[in-house]
Amino acid sequence: MKVARFANAEGPEALEIRDEAIPEPGAGQVRLKMKALGLNRAEALFLRGQYLEAPDLPSRIGIEGAGVVDAVGDGVDESLVGTRAGVVCAVNTRGFGVAGEYAVVNADMLLPDIASFDDESLAAFWVAYLTAYEGLIGLGQLQKRQSVILTAASSSVGLAGLQIAASCGAQAIATTRTKAKAARLKEAGADDVIITSESEGFGEDRFDVAFDAVAGPSLEALAMAMKSRGRMVVYGLLDGLAGTPFPAFPAFAKNLSLTAFHAGYHILADPARREPAVAWLLEHAPSLKPTIDRVFPFDELPAAYEYLEASGQFGKIVVKLEG
Amino acid sequence: MKVARFANAEGPEALEIRDEAIPEPGAGQVRLKMKALGLNRAEALFLRGQYLEAPDLPSRIGIEGAGVVDAVGDGVDESLVGTRAGVVCAVNTRGFGVAGEYAVVNADMLLPDIASFDDESLAAFWVAYLTAYEGLIGLGQLQKRQSVILTAASSSVGLAGLQIAASCGAQAIATTRTKAKAARLKEAGADDVIITSESEGFGEDRFDVAFDAVAGPSLEALAMAMKSRGRMVVYGLLDGLAGTPFPAFPAFAKNLSLTAFHAGYHILADPARREPAVAWLLEHAPSLKPTIDRVFPFDELPAAYEYLEASGQFGKIVVKLEG
Repeated sequence: MKVARFANAEGPEALEIRDEAIPEPGAGQVRLKMKALGLNRAEALFLRGQYLEAPDLPSRIGIEGAGVVDAVGDGVDESLVGTRAGVVCAVNTRGFGVAGEYAVVNADMLLPDIASFDDESLAAFWVAYLTAYEGLIGLGQLQKRQSVILTAASSSVGLAGLQIAASCGAQAIATTRTKAKAARLKEAGADDVIITSESEGFGEDRFDVAFDAVAGPSLEALAMAMKSRGRMVVYGLLDGLAGTPFPAFPAFAKNLSLTAFHAGYHILADPARREPAVAWLLEHAPSLKPTIDRVFPFDELPAAYEYLEASGQFGKIVVKLEG
Repeated sequence: MKVARFANAEGPEALEIRDEAIPEPGAGQVRLKMKALGLNRAEALFLRGQYLEAPDLPSRIGIEGAGVVDAVGDGVDESLVGTRAGVVCAVNTRGFGVAGEYAVVNADMLLPDIASFDDESLAAFWVAYLTAYEGLIGLGQLQKRQSVILTAASSSVGLAGLQIAASCGAQAIATTRTKAKAARLKEAGADDVIITSESEGFGEDRFDVAFDAVAGPSLEALAMAMKSRGRMVVYGLLDGLAGTPFPAFPAFAKNLSLTAFHAGYHILADPARREPAVAWLLEHAPSLKPTIDRVFPFDELPAAYEYLEASGQFGKIVVKLEG
């Protein structure tokens, strides 16, 4: 089978497509014939040794996709064989990787199929929508007629958040760096768009929930824009490694809360949080549709990660496997 | 009547004891013959024009105390006359002040009497215990057998927190700057004491809840010491004006939450949060006892605030009125 590996953590150029034996699933595991991959920023960091987990070189890669179960190990329901499933191995990025013609994963890394989705949409769905669900509803407790600001909203997670906000009957305000994507954000459901390169801050007393991919110095301006008892939920650190201030004064004056989370470690690995999130998303799937920016063939996986790193996309980057 | 006022916001020296006419309560108000005052750090900041609210000069002062209702305005239950009550006017520090022989306050600024307490204990109770309740239980959601770290724990709020942690069956770890107060903190109920001038950080993976009076750079080390899903609750900014980092990396890795709050604005002014807090504290009052550091006579109010500013106290500073 064809499989992607990298032998040094120097970014997409280090990725190679190799030929390897098709692996057998162990106890509690399944083997998937992969149909499509959804790329995530965590993988770009992992490729450069900048992620929460360091790779065991030479390392496989790929935390998300869609495939068909073609073998199961001991203790796994055999009726899974032949069924399509989503797969997310974000709880153990170092130990698993789905970027290949086949992948062996733990059975609890499977996520339900959504029959109305094609393979690309299924591969693009679970990480983005679980992350947005948890940020807006699980932690953000977004209510009907409340208002949520979504920063860097052109990502797959941000666009998922716009759809989930709409499902809640909430008002969604998207931010984007330049006006290039503003019109598409409105088409994607944003009630208003803030172009950060042209705006001073985000206003005042506007938002019940902030769903933030950025962290870093702009968190202070975001806090100024929150309503009393606002919930700020950070899910990404696009700007966070430079140092993020805790907005102590507005937090104190307005009883703001700040939370950060990781969809893999904190949702997928915790049944008490995973089950209601998955149930909500399955119930609302008819009104949810992943935005796919571009589909690459598997042979162009290095180019797909380079494209991800360039941050020009609008929605998910998907990689399609043949056959 | 004798009453304290300050004509410039330059600290305790600006405070004068003046003679003024005894005021009449307006509609919805009560007049208290004051018995004792509990001093709070907010007042020291208010005296220097550094508080969230600026004084209207010449300004009264005093947000907390105990007194006996001796007159009521229109619309207030007349049976209150002659009863003892706590009083907290922290939701409008600018508009009210109880440091005087008599004080007129809004009826909703009264808090229940606790019959087993003397005047000094009642004057020392409500702000400290409401703050500690909300931090540990309301926002911190501290559970039996969990662990809480209380920073700057020698304050009235910190010591209240030690008692509340014990009521919850939780383990309480207190911090203090030097070893001077360590033994007294253990006597006051701390299961362990961390002397911050002699320690590197607070350990790792130790605490479910942090109840923090400090903010500022030490928040990062505090975050490192939290367990997964830890709740960090900031109620004071002893060090916060110097800039507080948001501990993005540990917060992200461990799904930490940070909240800041103000007992006046967010608890006392919100019946949905005030009522359960007051009910819990009344239920547990038999096992709660305010720690009083020192009692000053009313004529020495400026010296009492100077003593507060020197930060050497262990527990509450109380001022007693005559008669």
